[in-house]
Order: sequence, then C-alpha cells, then structure tokens
Amino acid sequence: MPLAGEDRVKLQSLQEWISLDLELFEREYARLLSGELPLLVEISEHLRRGVGKRFRPTLLLISSKSAEEPNAEAVFAAACVELVHTATLIHDDFIDEASTRRGLPTVNARWGASAALIMGDFLYSKVFALLTARQRHEELAILARTTHQMSIAEMMQLERRRRLSQTEDEYLGIIRRKTASLIEASCEMGALVNPELVEHRGRLASFGLNVGLAFQITDDIFDYEGDLRRLGKPVGGDWREGRITLPFIAAWKNAGGEARQRILDCVAAENNGGNGADHWPLVCEFVQEHGGLEFAHTRAHHYGQAAKDALGGLPALPQREILAAAADYVLARLY
Amino acid sequence: MPLAGEDRVKLQSLQEWISLDLELFEREYARLLSGELPLLVEISEHLRRGVGKRFRPTLLLISSKSAEEPNAEAVFAAACVELVHTATLIHDDFIDEASTRRGLPTVNARWGASAALIMGDFLYSKVFALLTARQRHEELAILARTTHQMSIAEMMQLERRRRLSQTEDEYLGIIRRKTASLIEASCEMGALVNPELVEHRGRLASFGLNVGLAFQITDDIFDYEGDLRRLGKPVGGDWREGRITLPFIAAWKNAGGEARQRILDCVAAENNGGNGADHWPLVCEFVQEHGGLEFAHTRAHHYGQAAKDALGGLPALPQREILAAAADYVLARLY
Repeated sequence: MPLAGEDRVKLQSLQEWISLDLELFEREYARLLSGELPLLVEISEHLRRGVGKRFRPTLLLISSKSAEEPNAEAVFAAACVELVHTATLIHDDFIDEASTRRGLPTVNARWGASAALIMGDFLYSKVFALLTARQRHEELAILARTTHQMSIAEMMQLERRRRLSQTEDEYLGIIRRKTASLIEASCEMGALVNPELVEHRGRLASFGLNVGLAFQITDDIFDYEGDLRRLGKPVGGDWREGRITLPFIAAWKNAGGEARQRILDCVAAENNGGNGADHWPLVCEFVQEHGGLEFAHTRAHHYGQAAKDALGGLPALPQREILAAAADYVLARLY
Repeated sequence: MPLAGEDRVKLQSLQEWISLDLELFEREYARLLSGELPLLVEISEHLRRGVGKRFRPTLLLISSKSAEEPNAEAVFAAACVELVHTATLIHDDFIDEASTRRGLPTVNARWGASAALIMGDFLYSKVFALLTARQRHEELAILARTTHQMSIAEMMQLERRRRLSQTEDEYLGIIRRKTASLIEASCEMGALVNPELVEHRGRLASFGLNVGLAFQITDDIFDYEGDLRRLGKPVGGDWREGRITLPFIAAWKNAGGEARQRILDCVAAENNGGNGADHWPLVCEFVQEHGGLEFAHTRAHHYGQAAKDALGGLPALPQREILAAAADYVLARLY
C-alpha cells in the first residue's frame, strides 16, 4: 500500500542506509517473479506495478548489513521473503474477496479465483525450489516453518470468524503466526546470511517478532481509526470480513451486558441478510467508548518497546540504532 | 477413487509385498494429517474417510524395499508424498469447482472455497516444515521442485483452457509436470531413503516418470471412453472443464476442415451460454472417428513400455518384477 507524506519520509530515511542493497533487491525480485508463461508474465507485471513498502526486505537487509558492499545472499533472501509475502497477499485477497490492493485490482478480481490460487501456489513453491537449488537449508527451514504457521493462522481466523467473544491471547496467537512470524523470519535470515552477525540471530529474531506484533496491532487500530494518510485502505474491512481484532476484543471485555447486547443485535441483523456497513458506526462507537482503541495503543507500544529491548543485547552495531528507529516508525504510524 | 472388481485385485496384489509397510504408512499419514484446530480435525477426518488407491505411496514403498523390516524413512517419505497429493487434489477440486471426490463431497463443496485454499496451503507447508525439521534435504529438494512443476502445469492448463488446437508436445509438457512428476518423485525418493538402492535412483525416477505419463494418458482416455468399473467419476469432465487432452488432440490433428468446423460450431454455441453436456456426444464421436482414442492407447502403451525398459538396467532385485507389474496394472486399467 502506498505511503503518503510523513510516513513515507520516515520509512525512506530508514531505507537510505541500504539504498544500494534495496536496488539490487528490486532487480532480484523482478527477476525471480518473471517467467516464460504468458499468463505468468501478465500477472507478474501487474504485481510489480503495485509496489509495496518493502518492509520485510528492508528489515532483512538492515539486519544483515556489516559492509559497504551489498551481500548477495541477503539480497536473494530478501527477494524470497518478498515472494512469500506476495503469495500470502494473493491468497489473502482471495479469501477476503478483496477487489483492490495497492490501488490496483487484485489477482482474483482481474484473473479469477483459480488464477489467484495457482499464482500463490506458484510463488510459494518457487521460493522452496530456489532455496533448495541454492542449498540454503537454514533459510528454507525458517520459511517452511513460517509459511506453515501462516496457514495455521488463516485456519484459526476462518474458525473464529464473527466470533465476538475472543481473548487477547487467542488474538496474539493469530497475529504472531499471520504477520509477526514472517517479520521475525526476515530479521533472523538477515543474521543468518552474514557470518559476522549470525551469533545475533536470536536477538534479531526476537526484535522482528515484537516489531511484527506491533505492526499488526497498529494495522488493526487503523481499521477502526481510519487513517487518511494511508491511501487505498477502506476502514472497517476487518469487521466486514468477520475478523475480530484487538480494539474490539478489549472493548468487549470492558463492556457491560447492555452494550454487548446492542452489538449482538447488530450482528443478528447482519446475519439475517442486513448489511455490515449499516452498523459500522455503532461498532466503532462501541470500541471507542469502552476503551478498545486506548488499550490497543498501549499494547502496540508494549511490543514496540519489547522490540527495542531485544536490541539491547546487541553490541554497538550501526543497525542497532536503525532497527530501533524502525520500531519507532511502526508506532509513529499511529499519530 | 475406489476401484471395483478386477482393478482392485490387481493393485492389491502389488500391495501384498509391502502390506506391513503400507499399514505403517496409513498410521503415519493419519498422524501427520491430524492437528489441534477443530476445523482441521473435521476436514482431516473427512479426507481420511475417502481413501484413495495409495498409488504413489505404493510405488515409493516398493521402490525402497530391500529388507523384511519396514524402513521408517520410506514410510515417512510415503506419507509426505500422499500429503502433497492430497493438497493437490484439494486445490484441483477448487479450480474445477468439483463437488465430489472419492464418493464424498469435496472440501470446497463442504467447507467453502477459502477452507479449500487454506487446507491445501496448510498441507503443502506442513510437508516442507516436516522435511526440514527431519533434515531430509534431498527429499525436500525433490518435492520442492515437483510442487513447483505442478503449479506451472496448473497455470499452463489455465492458459490453454478451451484452446482446441494444441500439440502432443504441449500436452506432454503439462501431464509430465502435473501428474508424472510426483510419481517420478515417489520412485526416486524410494531409492533415496535406502542406502542399498540409492545408486538406482536415476533408473527408478525414469520408471516413475514413464509410468506417470502412461497413468495420466489412461486417465484421459477414461474421460472419453467412460469406465463402468471406475465409480464416482463422471465421463466428459475434462471437456466440460475445458481441458483438451490427448484423444482430442490426436483426433483434431487427423480431422479435416469440415469435421473441425462442426466442433468449432459446438464450442461457439457453448460460449454463447449453451451447455457443454449437449455437445458431448458429438465431441466423443469426433474423437472416436478420427482415431483419437486409438492413438492415445498407443501412446499409453509406449510409455508403459518405456517404464519397463527403464527397469532393465536394474539388477535382479525383487522390486524389478513388481514394478513391471505396476506398469502393466496402469495399462490394464484400459481393458
């Protein structure tokens, strides 16, 4: 999703330190995304037009850096992570029946459900085939575990769709697998590809995990608060798709029986063929009134701080400050 | 798909030699398929009820055998191959919008498209996570390459849907990736897990590839000839789904302009909202009249023979005869 204004500047300033690495990443990503089949070429070109933030490759490349010269294995690993991320988005958009992504039609909207399913399968399997051909056993192990966790999260989400009463722990179990695991993997892989940094693998993984949690919580807050700075993302999408996220979970916990009943009535009306959009203002008000957003803000800050704490064990490497700034960037998106 | 009568006897007689291994495989497969999430448990139990032929595990276990005692790595590898096969069937049924498989509702028909997509992703990623956790790098490399080939075949099939004029080479390129690659992988993995047989890896792979080609060609013939012995598979499914297979390709090559035009008229009528079922008898007649089935039979026999030839280089191992009988089983399905 494109960033505008201040946000873009902040992420870009983090990316300055690795600008050459990122350039090589873009070339590698484009190369790996391409193929010979006409349909594949068509979809790949479309995907390349909707450029994302490159948040995961950015963290991987920052985590891996210890020399001026870009590290070819880091560039390759970053491309693999972004291919996995792209595959996930394609399958996610299908599940959510989303029609746009990064301001462009989604693969399912433009080429149909079968093409979306196949393109996702193609990208996942390509990453595994590339990593085995290159004998990158450890990165492969990380990404195999991670994609499996992500699929479990999807199943959890499907099971708990529209289930209003959920615990914070259940929510964390989902977002840890769904979002934080790949960001954790990115940071860990950054350490793995550089013999000088491999001893910091555990700390960088822990940083990534916590940044990932903060990242998803802020995203879930945006879905309630709206965010004019973030283009192309409609507010209330999670609620419409039946995803119950932290702001709602916290509000539900705080609310009394009467307030809960009003929400239950909305849901019953929606289940009887009503339109979710009708009740969205009421749900928003409920979440706001019962401290859901406040609580979610607190938790996002908690994980942002935990991420920075994880960096504490690192020696005075240049990336220590830059990664701390990345954690700040994630939280700063809230203001 | 359940086999009836003679067919079942024939496959079962091949399976006698590895009956204990197959029993352990069933237990391992059930164990790996299970999980903790309620939805996963539900879908897994459903999948276990629709027992397939276990053709791929059978070939893997036969290929791997050199001692009375079952080989635990072979049993594990066979379970991985069957998990991949199951994932493929789930995604395939989704693409084809199939409503039944092995006499039961498909995952997409029963739990919806999202569950089918997620369950397939879950199984694929589980196999890769299991193989990396067990450090089975070579089997992982084979299955990574194979699943990637399978996804490419799906894309090719999607691209060439309803394209009447295709070459035999194009068709072979698809079925090699879609079907033969996993059967090839099964036989190669059988050799890989047994140090006494690993030197025969290439020959067993070549056997599997050719048996796989014969297998798919016979399947494609069944779709035209019908086969009362094979329950649960409606005839003409490929044509309705727009899959142009060898019997049609050969007939199209042999047919004159007038006969081709009649088929083109049918397709035009179907594209204008008609029903494929209406023209199916005409298409069948076209394929029969222009030697499509005869040609496909010849090609199936060619690959069956090539499979047996590949066994020629093996020493007088017990599986040499049994695998030759497996090739005969594939062809015998035609009569």
